[in-house]
Amino acid sequence: MIEKKDKGITTKKSENIADWYEQVCLKAELAEFSKVKGTMVIRPRGYYIWQAIQEYFNKNIIEKTQTENAYFPLFIPESFFLKEAKHAKGFSPEVAWLDKELTKEGERLAIRPTSETIIYDSYSRWIRSYKDLPLRINQWCNVVRWETQATKLFLRSREFLWQEGHCVYETEKQCDKETENYIKLYQKLCKELLSLPTIIGQKTEKEKFAGAKYTLTIEAFMPDGKALQCGTSHNLGQGFAKAFGISFLGQDEKPHLPWQNSWGLSTRLVGATVMTHSDDKGLILPPKIAKNQVVIIPLFFKGSEEKVLKQAKEIEKELLKFRPILDDREDQKPGYKFNEWEMKGIPLRIEIGPRDLEKKSVIVVKRNTGEKIPVKIKDLKKEIPKLLEQIHQELYSNAEKFLNSQIIEVKNWKEFTKAIKDKKIVKTLFCGEEECEDWIKDKTGGASSRCIPLESRNKKVKGKCSHCGKPAQTEIYFSKSY
Amino acid sequence: MIEKKDKGITTKKSENIADWYEQVCLKAELAEFSKVKGTMVIRPRGYYIWQAIQEYFNKNIIEKTQTENAYFPLFIPESFFLKEAKHAKGFSPEVAWLDKELTKEGERLAIRPTSETIIYDSYSRWIRSYKDLPLRINQWCNVVRWETQATKLFLRSREFLWQEGHCVYETEKQCDKETENYIKLYQKLCKELLSLPTIIGQKTEKEKFAGAKYTLTIEAFMPDGKALQCGTSHNLGQGFAKAFGISFLGQDEKPHLPWQNSWGLSTRLVGATVMTHSDDKGLILPPKIAKNQVVIIPLFFKGSEEKVLKQAKEIEKELLKFRPILDDREDQKPGYKFNEWEMKGIPLRIEIGPRDLEKKSVIVVKRNTGEKIPVKIKDLKKEIPKLLEQIHQELYSNAEKFLNSQIIEVKNWKEFTKAIKDKKIVKTLFCGEEECEDWIKDKTGGASSRCIPLESRNKKVKGKCSHCGKPAQTEIYFSKSY
Repeated sequence: MIEKKDKGITTKKSENIADWYEQVCLKAELAEFSKVKGTMVIRPRGYYIWQAIQEYFNKNIIEKTQTENAYFPLFIPESFFLKEAKHAKGFSPEVAWLDKELTKEGERLAIRPTSETIIYDSYSRWIRSYKDLPLRINQWCNVVRWETQATKLFLRSREFLWQEGHCVYETEKQCDKETENYIKLYQKLCKELLSLPTIIGQKTEKEKFAGAKYTLTIEAFMPDGKALQCGTSHNLGQGFAKAFGISFLGQDEKPHLPWQNSWGLSTRLVGATVMTHSDDKGLILPPKIAKNQVVIIPLFFKGSEEKVLKQAKEIEKELLKFRPILDDREDQKPGYKFNEWEMKGIPLRIEIGPRDLEKKSVIVVKRNTGEKIPVKIKDLKKEIPKLLEQIHQELYSNAEKFLNSQIIEVKNWKEFTKAIKDKKIVKTLFCGEEECEDWIKDKTGGASSRCIPLESRNKKVKGKCSHCGKPAQTEIYFSKSY
Repeated sequence: MIEKKDKGITTKKSENIADWYEQVCLKAELAEFSKVKGTMVIRPRGYYIWQAIQEYFNKNIIEKTQTENAYFPLFIPESFFLKEAKHAKGFSPEVAWLDKELTKEGERLAIRPTSETIIYDSYSRWIRSYKDLPLRINQWCNVVRWETQATKLFLRSREFLWQEGHCVYETEKQCDKETENYIKLYQKLCKELLSLPTIIGQKTEKEKFAGAKYTLTIEAFMPDGKALQCGTSHNLGQGFAKAFGISFLGQDEKPHLPWQNSWGLSTRLVGATVMTHSDDKGLILPPKIAKNQVVIIPLFFKGSEEKVLKQAKEIEKELLKFRPILDDREDQKPGYKFNEWEMKGIPLRIEIGPRDLEKKSVIVVKRNTGEKIPVKIKDLKKEIPKLLEQIHQELYSNAEKFLNSQIIEVKNWKEFTKAIKDKKIVKTLFCGEEECEDWIKDKTGGASSRCIPLESRNKKVKGKCSHCGKPAQTEIYFSKSY
């Protein structure tokens, strides 16, 4: 229940997006801050979204790619970390360690920030022959990264939930192909489930995963002009195989090093979805991930209460598969109820009063647009799924329009800095050098490379880097980011 | 792939159950020991079982009891632990703490051994009025208990996976009723999904959960006469509510302390299932939790290979919903394949050779009994589900017969010690005193109280304690345990 003083979101999305976002997460009861610094509680309405992602993922990605779920330990021995030098260097600063007292006799234990090392130790025992390949395993788990920056609900916390897939292949070609396939499946998930358009591409050398040959990414763009990395797929090359002693006897009966990839997405996606679609009234959710897709609100007038309530209950029964809420509280007025369920992001509201009853119809209100649509009661079961699909499409198409409108192609440094200042995404030519990337970040107050568009990865470009003027190596996106 | 030297289980279940059990888990590829002392890797064939439990649980327990899933932090501040004195005392010895360096400025952080304290901190903010009750929340997560005893795959490890439910009620009566309902639902899960018969009852004061008013339990009995606790449901009384400041405004507009329960089951259940049903050839699984319910093995003879393989593939397609494996390896003989899939616990094997083809039939072999059943190919789709159901029933009824045959009612101390020596479960009268329980454990080399049978909890008994001779308070089960 919402107390009067907390009623509604008190900040506008356009004015202070950080405060607005936090209010939406808190007041729609998706999550709250925990008393443990840097961590969060995911409440049932928020966890439902994560479960919907898991369900989609297991059905459409795990099963279809013949990947299997498994579970590896939370703790990782220090020596495992040290085996792959670049990986160790990349992750060391944010690793949380167990109390040394517990491991007095052995080596230090880390809490997994990611599981490459502990998983590949097992792989070194499981893989013997080309017949054991490809090996494709995924795990759903919690990971810990001891961030020092301030926590943002879903977007940054010291513990988060994710999945991490870890595959091993005979050939580089196969590895390349599937590394790309997984990131494309992530993009599809974002579109089909979360109405979230993303840009797909390759990270620069500077921004790639610690220990990877290359990293593919999908990036969403938030209304404040900041990018949000929504999923990554890393071709790990043969570095981990070498470090962990994974090898296989090939069809040629000789030993070979396999190729590996890893790929992950996290509860961050919940944050990206909330921030993209919601408005000043509160949460807007793509219908597929809404815990309740419909709220039914009977409008009580003296004398007809009983009749109206009876009809509302019948509708509730009829619409059971849309996980309806029937809000028949007598101590709250309709307006209060409208506000509450709008804030909590129920995609469709059904209003039913005595006059509607006479006409054997109800008013259906779309959360995303506020449109009021009269629907005959007998048609509800047929019309609701159409309206839900419509909302899904509208959310996607609005977000896509916004994304496209934000991308500005720039030819020189002046245009570059202006675009970043205007909170746009810069598309430009780039020399590819890490130093130049550092300079850009520094001079723009934080803009970093997002990715080299997937389709132009191997395309040769003519022209100059818009920052340093050296010959360009590639097209690229730059923007600020979460 | 299994290498020749590892072929088969080399220890008999009746001779050395511990070694036999470990071999079954390892060779059926359910799990392996991790290099981190005290932890394990759950491999895909093992994790599948856990996923089946999760799926059943979410559908039949979570949804039907209007419980909601959520997620709370892995880390718990020390001060939370200390709030409920008995709880703190019970769990302190096995808590793993984070490196003090990480929390220099704040208090020590524990890795959750169970989540009552961190969850009830949130509840103290979420609950205001009787309208917020009952509150029923469950979480799926990993927990850590720094055991010093040797690890047993699934049965005892420093990290394990579980679910923990946490409910809050207005009245004691409601709390009692649902605490009992949840343990009954656990028993139903064991029966319907895992073919596992259990005894249901209440723990003694000595064995109850730290901080609980009372604990209900379901206990399975292993072939070596040891009990295995499979799930518990605790009525927490009002102690945690008091400690965490959870109160609600009642219908009488006055503040009240609510009643709480918590209930959990873990990956231990996988171990109980494996140990109960499997045999000297390896794993036997109740069909509902088998990753593959059917393996199809074409018998190749010169000249007819192509025809047989074609038919085998058609059968595979036809039986897709039973998650079939078609083992068409040409470099392995049928006998080798039979052994391998028997060891891995596939409930049904379909053998198809040229002679069967002529008769338009196949041989179906039941893993649990070895029965060979000729089935017309056109009838397969209809017969397979019947056979799977039959296996499920047979496993349950065998286990139930065994369980019943193990329970010995004893009247005096001589009978008591003999029964325990014979690896039986003692059912007897008991004085209820903790000291007496300690003595029994000591004198029998480890037998501890399992539970007071649910149906005789509130029954008055006449007679004497079979150990100390004092007036008996209750009926009870005693046995050794895992």
